[in-house]
Amino acid sequence: MGSNFAYKNTRDLEFILEEWLPIEDIFACEKYSAYTKDEIKPLLNTARKMAKEALEPAYEDADKNPAKLVDGKVIVPPSYQALWDMIQANGWGNSNADPDPEAVTLPETLYSACREMFQAANCDFQMYFSLSSKVTDIIARFGSERTKKIFLPNLLTGKWSGGMGLSEPGAGSDVGDLLTRAYPTDDPDIYKLKGQKIFISCAGHPLTENNIIMCLARVEGALPGTPGVSLFMLPEIWVNEDGTMEPNDFEVTSVEHKMGLHGQPTCALSYGDNDGCRGWRVGIDPLQNGGRGDGMKIIFNLVNSSRLGNGLWSTALSANATYNARDYAAERVQGYNSKGERVRIIEHADIRRKLLNGKAIAEAGRALVYKGNYFVDISKHHADPEVRKAAADNLAILVPLAKAYCTDEVWNVAADAIQVYGGYGYSEEYPVAHIARDCKITSILEGTNYIQSWDLISRKMTMGKGVPFQKALDEIAAFIENNQSSQVFAREFAIMDEAYKAYRGIVEKVKEWQTDLEKNQDTLSFYACKILTATAQLFAGRLLLDQALLAAKKAKENGQDHYDYNYYNGKVVATRYYVKNIVPAIISTASMIVSSDSTEVDFDNAIFDY
Amino acid sequence: MGSNFAYKNTRDLEFILEEWLPIEDIFACEKYSAYTKDEIKPLLNTARKMAKEALEPAYEDADKNPAKLVDGKVIVPPSYQALWDMIQANGWGNSNADPDPEAVTLPETLYSACREMFQAANCDFQMYFSLSSKVTDIIARFGSERTKKIFLPNLLTGKWSGGMGLSEPGAGSDVGDLLTRAYPTDDPDIYKLKGQKIFISCAGHPLTENNIIMCLARVEGALPGTPGVSLFMLPEIWVNEDGTMEPNDFEVTSVEHKMGLHGQPTCALSYGDNDGCRGWRVGIDPLQNGGRGDGMKIIFNLVNSSRLGNGLWSTALSANATYNARDYAAERVQGYNSKGERVRIIEHADIRRKLLNGKAIAEAGRALVYKGNYFVDISKHHADPEVRKAAADNLAILVPLAKAYCTDEVWNVAADAIQVYGGYGYSEEYPVAHIARDCKITSILEGTNYIQSWDLISRKMTMGKGVPFQKALDEIAAFIENNQSSQVFAREFAIMDEAYKAYRGIVEKVKEWQTDLEKNQDTLSFYACKILTATAQLFAGRLLLDQALLAAKKAKENGQDHYDYNYYNGKVVATRYYVKNIVPAIISTASMIVSSDSTEVDFDNAIFDY
Repeated sequence: MGSNFAYKNTRDLEFILEEWLPIEDIFACEKYSAYTKDEIKPLLNTARKMAKEALEPAYEDADKNPAKLVDGKVIVPPSYQALWDMIQANGWGNSNADPDPEAVTLPETLYSACREMFQAANCDFQMYFSLSSKVTDIIARFGSERTKKIFLPNLLTGKWSGGMGLSEPGAGSDVGDLLTRAYPTDDPDIYKLKGQKIFISCAGHPLTENNIIMCLARVEGALPGTPGVSLFMLPEIWVNEDGTMEPNDFEVTSVEHKMGLHGQPTCALSYGDNDGCRGWRVGIDPLQNGGRGDGMKIIFNLVNSSRLGNGLWSTALSANATYNARDYAAERVQGYNSKGERVRIIEHADIRRKLLNGKAIAEAGRALVYKGNYFVDISKHHADPEVRKAAADNLAILVPLAKAYCTDEVWNVAADAIQVYGGYGYSEEYPVAHIARDCKITSILEGTNYIQSWDLISRKMTMGKGVPFQKALDEIAAFIENNQSSQVFAREFAIMDEAYKAYRGIVEKVKEWQTDLEKNQDTLSFYACKILTATAQLFAGRLLLDQALLAAKKAKENGQDHYDYNYYNGKVVATRYYVKNIVPAIISTASMIVSSDSTEVDFDNAIFDY
Repeated sequence: MGSNFAYKNTRDLEFILEEWLPIEDIFACEKYSAYTKDEIKPLLNTARKMAKEALEPAYEDADKNPAKLVDGKVIVPPSYQALWDMIQANGWGNSNADPDPEAVTLPETLYSACREMFQAANCDFQMYFSLSSKVTDIIARFGSERTKKIFLPNLLTGKWSGGMGLSEPGAGSDVGDLLTRAYPTDDPDIYKLKGQKIFISCAGHPLTENNIIMCLARVEGALPGTPGVSLFMLPEIWVNEDGTMEPNDFEVTSVEHKMGLHGQPTCALSYGDNDGCRGWRVGIDPLQNGGRGDGMKIIFNLVNSSRLGNGLWSTALSANATYNARDYAAERVQGYNSKGERVRIIEHADIRRKLLNGKAIAEAGRALVYKGNYFVDISKHHADPEVRKAAADNLAILVPLAKAYCTDEVWNVAADAIQVYGGYGYSEEYPVAHIARDCKITSILEGTNYIQSWDLISRKMTMGKGVPFQKALDEIAAFIENNQSSQVFAREFAIMDEAYKAYRGIVEKVKEWQTDLEKNQDTLSFYACKILTATAQLFAGRLLLDQALLAAKKAKENGQDHYDYNYYNGKVVATRYYVKNIVPAIISTASMIVSSDSTEVDFDNAIFDY
């Protein structure tokens, strides 16, 4: 009845990694040359076991015993200490952040498949070690030798942990408007910090001896706005270079009472109230650089994997909500079939539609995210700079799609799962209400979904004079064209063709609006989220059809009696559903946008008084 | 920051009741002849004041101090006792349930406008007195003289309360499969009851001296299934005819830990464990009637107003979530305008779209629900039986649309409101997360939304050989036809015309499928929810355009400087948005359904294993 990690197997992840993606390209990179395909299945099995046996049992505990602030100290769910220790001892804490060239780290594409299961099993605990790994990665890549020496060893073993401190009360989406100040000291790398942060995940927690918050601040005298922002390492306990430790002037002032994610403390922080908070600058000295810091640039280095991580997280929750609903539907008896016999509700067509929709959305999400992660690995590690550049362009386009689309859709998939459970779905004794509460943050974190849509329209569609985006569209057009004669998916490719042509109308309209942004900015913003959704549906439809062609071929080769038939056939059925039931929305979105103009946005806000 | 009742005024409700609906028809009924239009505005003002000053302050308290079971006793939020007493003392407890012909009761249409605000301000407390009023109404209409004498006086004053006990662990959507038994005693009206119920709202609460659960059971010896079900009054404390009271054999065995609605106890009940639970039969004796009870028939008498009440509830939450988001957006500064100045976020086009969508959905919901309530009053009280019949038919069609469509949409409106708040939306210190948690039950209660869609397709489309439904469609066609020359709404009527024609394709397809139900039942069920949504969008588009034509006329007559201009213009803008952004979904749903066949539903459930 409790919170269930309901992944029965890793078959779809295996398909993606072993059969669909050209994973050989990644293993051909020098960095990952130690890997072969043979290691994929055992890795996924180990991760699934970890998710099931270690992470899942603590998920329910965390929801019922939330993180909170007691006498100025952050308390976390009782089960989390043993879990932290175990995750670190088993090497999952920094699976792809170890800077040691000898260390065996996982390609992002493989690690994500493990992380998907960790997120499904216990997404709030997963944040602790995912954030910590992110901080380790920043220090390894951008920290000075001094800070690497002090911090990396203990971060890599999980004796210490890390978190990110970006938002402030007046600086949420506008990060550059932050008020936190950094004052130079006698040591050119060390500053006194003074300010407040909000929405800081996993700060002040007692799981580790020390916790290092990466925090944005403006050095006194640097430029205003985003250009003047620098990044600092703020250890909750100050560490001298000889290893001795002493208090830093740092306080958790409150822990948010949130809708979900109860196991992780989302904190408001105050530091330097007594002028005694010290932090290390990461990156260049802005005062030696015309007032320009590189804080935002460093953070921006992480943005692709953070946003894909958000898409993955919501995909994991879509999948797990649907798997739970499937298990419930397979047991619950209610209603009758046409012969008048009572049946398990999984026999009802409406329940089957809800499960199929959840399956299709989860698989669409996986297609977008794993394709993105493939491009992450290639763009970083491929030997050929042109291949790296092309991968980086494709990645740049996929990131806002994967982030916003998956995090929007999970809300409705969770609602469908609740509906499958009926009244029990509304009860916290069953797992799906918990999933619904947890998932809602994903559309806000790491840039709201509107920010993603604006990123798509104003940056990704236009970067490189629009060539990479045009190339991605041409590639979709060619894919449709090349498969027009498909007998298995004749109807699906016909729908894709119509949707693609309609989508071109959106692109033309966007270009037209962009020629006079002063006049059309509001109209473009008004429709931005819808444009992103249509774009994601087009790309997801294409990727799913790519998978389904392969699956249909294998299903045919193997025959219906093969043990894998149901898996391959499921891919075909889910793709047909996606193309037929979801892709046509592109057509109606296009007809709406193509006939739009600025008059629709031209109304007085006073109408909202009623 | 807390939970806000953010209705600034009652202008839209006044428009609906005074300007749009032919409310004179209701006041012309003898039952309501004491009313005039002059009383509407003062009534709404009083209700709004009650919502703001009494109900709202307790909403937050209830969420933080949930109802629970302690040592076998139900504990409710501390603020609820004073609230109960006040609501009853002010006559709001049974505003339209008093059976006394001399009593001044409110028409459903008027009372609903008050109830909408009560639901927006504190929907969980509202359930206590709404359920109690329903029980009063059942006893007044179907109870014996003996039970009326014992129970009605104390129910009408609010000294006692009532609730409904329908669901059982194995009988949720299949109410007729209940296991509760009733055994005759020496008194032909009194039975011994034995069984369990689940999901019973507001049972066992300490706000009143006694609480009467209306509960479905099968008299020993009656027919199996739905035909053999009877209705019983089960007082938590037994009342003798001389007024003395003694314990009944009744126990609350648990209180659900729910996603929302924390202020009201959703209980599991057990009664007759010691063979000492007595209840009064309501309605006919099934053993004198060939084993047939009338329990389901009596409950069915309430189903229209209960389901409309659910549509109203979710509409109230859609409106209140949007109003709260508006107030936050009008204060929160973030982002820049084209001149580079920081602005309040209500200036951003994307935020304006979200608010406009919420406004359009709330107004579409109101159009469906209030039109439905108008038909409730006319169908019950109009002097002309033909008018009553026509109203009952129209009501029958609107009920599943209003129930399912409004309760589906509120989930996304709440998500948009959370998104407007950004990170604060996920915090329970702000009101919208609470609204999202509360609203999710409405798509499940009173018949799941799938049950509504099946009611539409299998009953409402076909009742009276399909004539009333055809008539309703013809009326929409005539409305579109008559307004094709509208200059103000030329584009909107063109879209409606296209949508209407597409929708006819759905209706034809449904008829075709219905000719061979054995073959097509699964396909029809697969698409049932989508068919309901398209139907609701068509009806709502038509009703909103009807309102907007009136509003545009008044706006033009009054001129832009008139104090009412923004209200009327808002109705026009919201309707344009609805028709242009939402109605076209009918067209893509139609194209999907028209080209569907049974092969789409013909897959093995084993595909869900992956």
